[in-house]
Amino acid sequence: MEGAHLAKKHGKGPAGGPSKGKKTQEEIINRAMRIAAVEGLVALSIGRLAKALRMSKSGLFVHFGRKEKLEMAVIERAYDIFNGSILLPAEEVAPGIERVWALCDLWMEFVESRVLPGGYFFTGAFWERAPQEGDIADRIRQIVDEWLTALRRAIDGARLSGEIRRGVDGRRTAFELNSLLLGAQWSHLLSGRDQTKARSAILTKLGSLATEDVPATAFESVEEWDRYLEARHE
Amino acid sequence: MEGAHLAKKHGKGPAGGPSKGKKTQEEIINRAMRIAAVEGLVALSIGRLAKALRMSKSGLFVHFGRKEKLEMAVIERAYDIFNGSILLPAEEVAPGIERVWALCDLWMEFVESRVLPGGYFFTGAFWERAPQEGDIADRIRQIVDEWLTALRRAIDGARLSGEIRRGVDGRRTAFELNSLLLGAQWSHLLSGRDQTKARSAILTKLGSLATEDVPATAFESVEEWDRYLEARHE
Repeated sequence: MEGAHLAKKHGKGPAGGPSKGKKTQEEIINRAMRIAAVEGLVALSIGRLAKALRMSKSGLFVHFGRKEKLEMAVIERAYDIFNGSILLPAEEVAPGIERVWALCDLWMEFVESRVLPGGYFFTGAFWERAPQEGDIADRIRQIVDEWLTALRRAIDGARLSGEIRRGVDGRRTAFELNSLLLGAQWSHLLSGRDQTKARSAILTKLGSLATEDVPATAFESVEEWDRYLEARHE
Repeated sequence: MEGAHLAKKHGKGPAGGPSKGKKTQEEIINRAMRIAAVEGLVALSIGRLAKALRMSKSGLFVHFGRKEKLEMAVIERAYDIFNGSILLPAEEVAPGIERVWALCDLWMEFVESRVLPGGYFFTGAFWERAPQEGDIADRIRQIVDEWLTALRRAIDGARLSGEIRRGVDGRRTAFELNSLLLGAQWSHLLSGRDQTKARSAILTKLGSLATEDVPATAFESVEEWDRYLEARHE
């Protein structure tokens, strides 16, 4: 899905096909992103990339003179994928608890399906770079902040639509849901176990915030929740 | 606290003072750990360390021939600090919700007080290495597993002592508490905000699991909780 999305956004020359230089640049970014997703941004080096791509170092320098330029390109590519796989699809879901769930569910699907090797790119990049300073760290913090804001807005929307109780704090709930997602990715990396436990913990959390507009049984399991959504959209 | 603990465990020669070789080795490990805590294990290189310590590369090679040997020494040092700052002190706390809280609270204190620069070493190391294979990744997974087991045991202990309800799943609760702690560290890195939100989310979670043996008001805030513990120990 995000492949198609990216193809539309990037690399097309005026005649509809990508220019050769653009295509090479795309290849470099994609390969760099796959290395960074498993070993961290810090593992990117021009020498290593040149070897992986069977290019000369000077050929790589034409595209990315400084390492930071390459890192930033990788981050923007990862952001496009994140946006296309999670943020944009969730916005197409009706506002309410359904959209809050969609954000969490898409996030977990993203980790499970290994769209990027190593799981969710920004978790690793965030732990790697957040203690540091500079443009790269700032951009990563900004993207992470955008994610937390999307969660908070979805929660606020669900409160406005009457599905979440009035007293619920959007910021704190976003923190709690993000925590459960981090924990889910952590468990996934630790043991490769599936995310049933995490999904069920998220549904329990959402159930504890919901008004009587949503039946309590809907939060009992992922199957119940899917059934509820289906019935609702019939 | 953990400094004293470490001094007792490491580096003392037979006459009570550390031998010169041992002392140098300690210095190398400490410096390496501080680099790894901020920039990741991947940032460790013999060349870089030699520069930081004003030693020759060959001098460093005498102590740590392979990079993996140095990485493992750093991990074991970080583990000693983790054990001395969190696991051991928590075991001195009476079993019950009090001990579950102590594990979480000590963990957050550890991150806040920056015992290690960059916060909790193993979070970064885990995200960096868990997607990979090998001895280092295995050892990190083992330590993370030990932490989750300590949490689960504390929860099971609190259930046995009658403070946590019978139906509560220790494994799932450990997952949820660990998630909140990861989220807390995440927020701390993102904005440097204090952990009041995280502590209060953890108390709310514990309150939702507690039996009537602990008054519900105790979970309303950190102050209330401290007051409850004080009254209890009088």
